[in-house]
Amino acid sequence: MNYYREVKVSTGGSFEVSDITDTIRAVVGESGVLEGMAVITSLHTTCALSVNENEARLFEDISDFFLTIAPPDGSYKHNDLHLRVNIPHDEPENAHAHLVAMMLGNSEIVTVHHRALVLGRYQSILLLEMDGPRERTLAVQVLGE
Amino acid sequence: MNYYREVKVSTGGSFEVSDITDTIRAVVGESGVLEGMAVITSLHTTCALSVNENEARLFEDISDFFLTIAPPDGSYKHNDLHLRVNIPHDEPENAHAHLVAMMLGNSEIVTVHHRALVLGRYQSILLLEMDGPRERTLAVQVLGE
Amino acid sequence: MNYYREVKVSTGGSFEVSDITDTIRAVVGESGVLEGMAVITSLHTTCALSVNENEARLFEDISDFFLTIAPPDGSYKHNDLHLRVNIPHDEPENAHAHLVAMMLGNSEIVTVHHRALVLGRYQSILLLEMDGPRERTLAVQVLGE
Repeated sequence: MNYYREVKVSTGGSFEVSDITDTIRAVVGESGVLEGMAVITSLHTTCALSVNENEARLFEDISDFFLTIAPPDGSYKHNDLHLRVNIPHDEPENAHAHLVAMMLGNSEIVTVHHRALVLGRYQSILLLEMDGPRERTLAVQVLGE
Repeated sequence: MNYYREVKVSTGGSFEVSDITDTIRAVVGESGVLEGMAVITSLHTTCALSVNENEARLFEDISDFFLTIAPPDGSYKHNDLHLRVNIPHDEPENAHAHLVAMMLGNSEIVTVHHRALVLGRYQSILLLEMDGPRERTLAVQVLGE
Repeated sequence: MNYYREVKVSTGGSFEVSDITDTIRAVVGESGVLEGMAVITSLHTTCALSVNENEARLFEDISDFFLTIAPPDGSYKHNDLHLRVNIPHDEPENAHAHLVAMMLGNSEIVTVHHRALVLGRYQSILLLEMDGPRERTLAVQVLGE
């Protein structure tokens, strides 16, 4: 049994963490899958998915931490737009966002058991925007029985 | 075909890497799945899963490396417990553990082929505790035929 | 429905990013799966998989970034080969490669919808070699209907 749906999420800041658990839970409910898994993938290269705690002050730490490791105004070859070919006229300087996205990963897999997402008490599914604000598309696939 | 089981793992240190391959292999054996995949997820926000080498000195490097990138005594907003609401009386100061857990990820997926986990010669499934010692719960799901 | 195949990829540099999307797409085509997912796992501990943009200057940034975070000539206990037992005579000093591999992860999952990989416009499946050149083996499993 297989259920596929794309969902759109609007992000509000240049770096923003948002909780998308309810959105994914709704898709799993629609799917009718009792036992299996939900695979959530971002179709972008400058945002990421992670499972962690929805706590406002932690969200600020996440932003501070990753923007210190990969500062937006650092020196990156990808940001030398005049040296690249075939780029859109509105191409942003976002190399740091690619690097953070790679560290965090663009997909998450959550087990479905008894028709529900299996998440611990403090776990939420988080979308991490690193190059917003934008509308992002997530592919959600629920596979199982 | 779908088999779900939760397993408990006791961790021994504040930062500890342990090899859980045998535990996961046993669950795959119980499942009866011949071809498919095992999805292992931690139900916590301050430990992580990774597939890498079980080598004692590398385990020390892993601890040194991640605790240098995200020092436990760094300045984190999540650790200002007096500014947060509805927190347990025994809430630890563990922002660094959340950040390392996000970098490493809280799930792993291992292919099952010919009734066995597909792992390379030097690969083990590792549980990384960043805020122990604790008893941790892992959800293991084996999906396939 | 389940299709399993291993593919070999030769890497050319000590740190090298290469685009393996076409290889994985071919395996998905062979599999006959219409709806499901492809799981790609590296069977090694010093290379990684990621989904991000195939852009030559970004590939240089990726190399610069991760080799700065985990410098090959840093001080690592895993590299004190004389203190380890039962190691091959040609064991390399590659602790940094293990650490970077853990940050990036050794597996990727890509949704299959309408018989095709679901990837965004700028997304490619990337193999990141951190201890090459070598021949690497990837396990590709396509599961679905």
